[in-house]
Amino acid sequence: MDVKQVLHMNGGSGDTSYARNSTIQSIIASLKKEVRQSEAVESYRSSSPDCLKIAELGCSSGKNALLVASEIIDAVEQNCLREGCSPPDFLILLNDLPSNDFNSVFSLLSDQLQCEPRRNCFAYGVPGSFYGRLFPSQSLDFVHSSSSLHWLSQVPRDICDQLNAPLNKGKLYISKTTPDEVLEAYYSQFEEDFSHFLKCRAEEMVDGGRMMLTFMGRRIGEEAHSSESCYHWDLLAQALMDMTNEGFFPKEKVDSFDAPYYAPSVEEVKKVVLSQGCFTINVLEAFAASWNALQNDESGNGEENREYKAGHAGRMANCVRAVAESMLVSHFEEHIMEEVFNRYQNLLEDYYLKNKPQVTNVVVSLVRNPRKAL
Amino acid sequence: MDVKQVLHMNGGSGDTSYARNSTIQSIIASLKKEVRQSEAVESYRSSSPDCLKIAELGCSSGKNALLVASEIIDAVEQNCLREGCSPPDFLILLNDLPSNDFNSVFSLLSDQLQCEPRRNCFAYGVPGSFYGRLFPSQSLDFVHSSSSLHWLSQVPRDICDQLNAPLNKGKLYISKTTPDEVLEAYYSQFEEDFSHFLKCRAEEMVDGGRMMLTFMGRRIGEEAHSSESCYHWDLLAQALMDMTNEGFFPKEKVDSFDAPYYAPSVEEVKKVVLSQGCFTINVLEAFAASWNALQNDESGNGEENREYKAGHAGRMANCVRAVAESMLVSHFEEHIMEEVFNRYQNLLEDYYLKNKPQVTNVVVSLVRNPRKAL
Repeated sequence: MDVKQVLHMNGGSGDTSYARNSTIQSIIASLKKEVRQSEAVESYRSSSPDCLKIAELGCSSGKNALLVASEIIDAVEQNCLREGCSPPDFLILLNDLPSNDFNSVFSLLSDQLQCEPRRNCFAYGVPGSFYGRLFPSQSLDFVHSSSSLHWLSQVPRDICDQLNAPLNKGKLYISKTTPDEVLEAYYSQFEEDFSHFLKCRAEEMVDGGRMMLTFMGRRIGEEAHSSESCYHWDLLAQALMDMTNEGFFPKEKVDSFDAPYYAPSVEEVKKVVLSQGCFTINVLEAFAASWNALQNDESGNGEENREYKAGHAGRMANCVRAVAESMLVSHFEEHIMEEVFNRYQNLLEDYYLKNKPQVTNVVVSLVRNPRKAL
Repeated sequence: MDVKQVLHMNGGSGDTSYARNSTIQSIIASLKKEVRQSEAVESYRSSSPDCLKIAELGCSSGKNALLVASEIIDAVEQNCLREGCSPPDFLILLNDLPSNDFNSVFSLLSDQLQCEPRRNCFAYGVPGSFYGRLFPSQSLDFVHSSSSLHWLSQVPRDICDQLNAPLNKGKLYISKTTPDEVLEAYYSQFEEDFSHFLKCRAEEMVDGGRMMLTFMGRRIGEEAHSSESCYHWDLLAQALMDMTNEGFFPKEKVDSFDAPYYAPSVEEVKKVVLSQGCFTINVLEAFAASWNALQNDESGNGEENREYKAGHAGRMANCVRAVAESMLVSHFEEHIMEEVFNRYQNLLEDYYLKNKPQVTNVVVSLVRNPRKAL
């Protein structure tokens, strides 16, 4: 799979669009709003540039794309008001792969992005993979990415045996039955990608600039094949395998699909950052997000609870569809998608009756170390 | 008409798309390729930045959007090769109104934009009107725009009488019968817009940076209502008026439409640049462009000539449709467009039997004057 060509969140604003099915991503972003605002303000204070340059990596489309930027602008303007200084201009650099629906992002700009009347606020679209250089050297003050960096640059190599037969049969991602070679191949790909990501950003960021990333990940000590980390891929694989058993398509189709995805643990993230060497870790922790994370309450029992969990299952199925459909369509056939995601929703509903409807994320905030004088 | 919301070249890659009907624009751009390359190289030599920042204003979609940028990259790389210096990184800033089809531009990026392997070449989309600030202060080295600046920021005010009745009846733009008030209103709008355009660019460009603009215009001494300057609007108005006479829609629909367009003369351009004061004129002249401008020959006579002229009429009708349809649809009705442009093509065909199938453009190249030391 050519991830750069294939992967994109569902565009437009229809029923299966990312714009309409990205509530969990906006919840994940909102859970870390205060840390992010404070990190962005620190970025600004470290050099007080005339124009604060902010990159949003993996912006996708819909309201989330601009929400974070507009909150950062608010925070920096508030800071300047408190300190009696004149706020900077803002340049928002919205990045995603070239197949992202940038037209739809741009159509929301004038409504969503406003700054203090006397200042300028610019927003550009930056098409390209964040696993390569995207920006000129030392041109960024603050970098942010939420719910994107769990996507790898490619499906890990070496997950076939010597005869080129798939090693991770009947699965789409790491799971309980995954052989060690596959676990290692996934980790290696993550290590290579994340390390290269850090190197590119290190070149692009100014000294003292900050970068805050949140992505799907694992708690300290949680194994890569824990059910909490894998259940959304496991159940999607089960939906597809049920369909192969009913003759929809041959089993080999499932055997040969592997997601270009990795949910790293807190320790794995730390290891790569330390070994890359250009950044100091300011914040690093795992956190859980669920659709009721902001309400801080659990619903009732019995029928009421079932209905409540079913709501989660529906939202999760729609969300995974908006995110993963482009990849599945490129490998399976488009006309089976409705059936796949109906079955997936049923499996999620059963799962949520026994397990918490939540996903684990890792948040990391990094400071660009000063470059050594020549 | 809210020009910023309404005006966009036809998107996508279908029969009526700008991408497939912008040959004349690419000819206009190619006629000034050498001047442009030399001006871009001078921009680079004046400050030798690590990253040369180039803005393409009104980029639209299709291959033209990136053609100019890729020619500039070639020229600067060749210059560096000759002078034995290391070429810079390149940042290409592709601007158009937010309703432009940026998705289609981004899909062509990896094919069309390549620079020397060891260097970085970045391309961003910059949605917004060039009649306002688009870029941070002193962030541009070279600015280019071709076939865009004849669009005004709005339909001129004051082209109604005191009872709010249209003054320019039966026409879409200036023509032989246009009253003086209308001529003045069009010129005032051009003066206000172009002056504000220069002010914005002056803030955005570095000292010594250059800006090259080509747009529809008039030769020295040519009047605003000359048939050469107005025929493509005149004939479109005639096609619409013929249809009102046949009952397709009321005459008032044509009376109340005025194009947000102005083709200035060489003297008018000079006057605004000198009065604005931030730029020195390096090149300023009018030139004619036609579909055979690059072949430098006229075809035969009689039937052969008729067929040849008919080809021009078809291309011109398709080109005007790709450019102006968004505005016409917002005022008239979408379903009449096919009929309008069929009639328009016939009128152009007759016109080209008696007149040269060409359009007049103005090219101006400006140098940003050094800012005064504080």
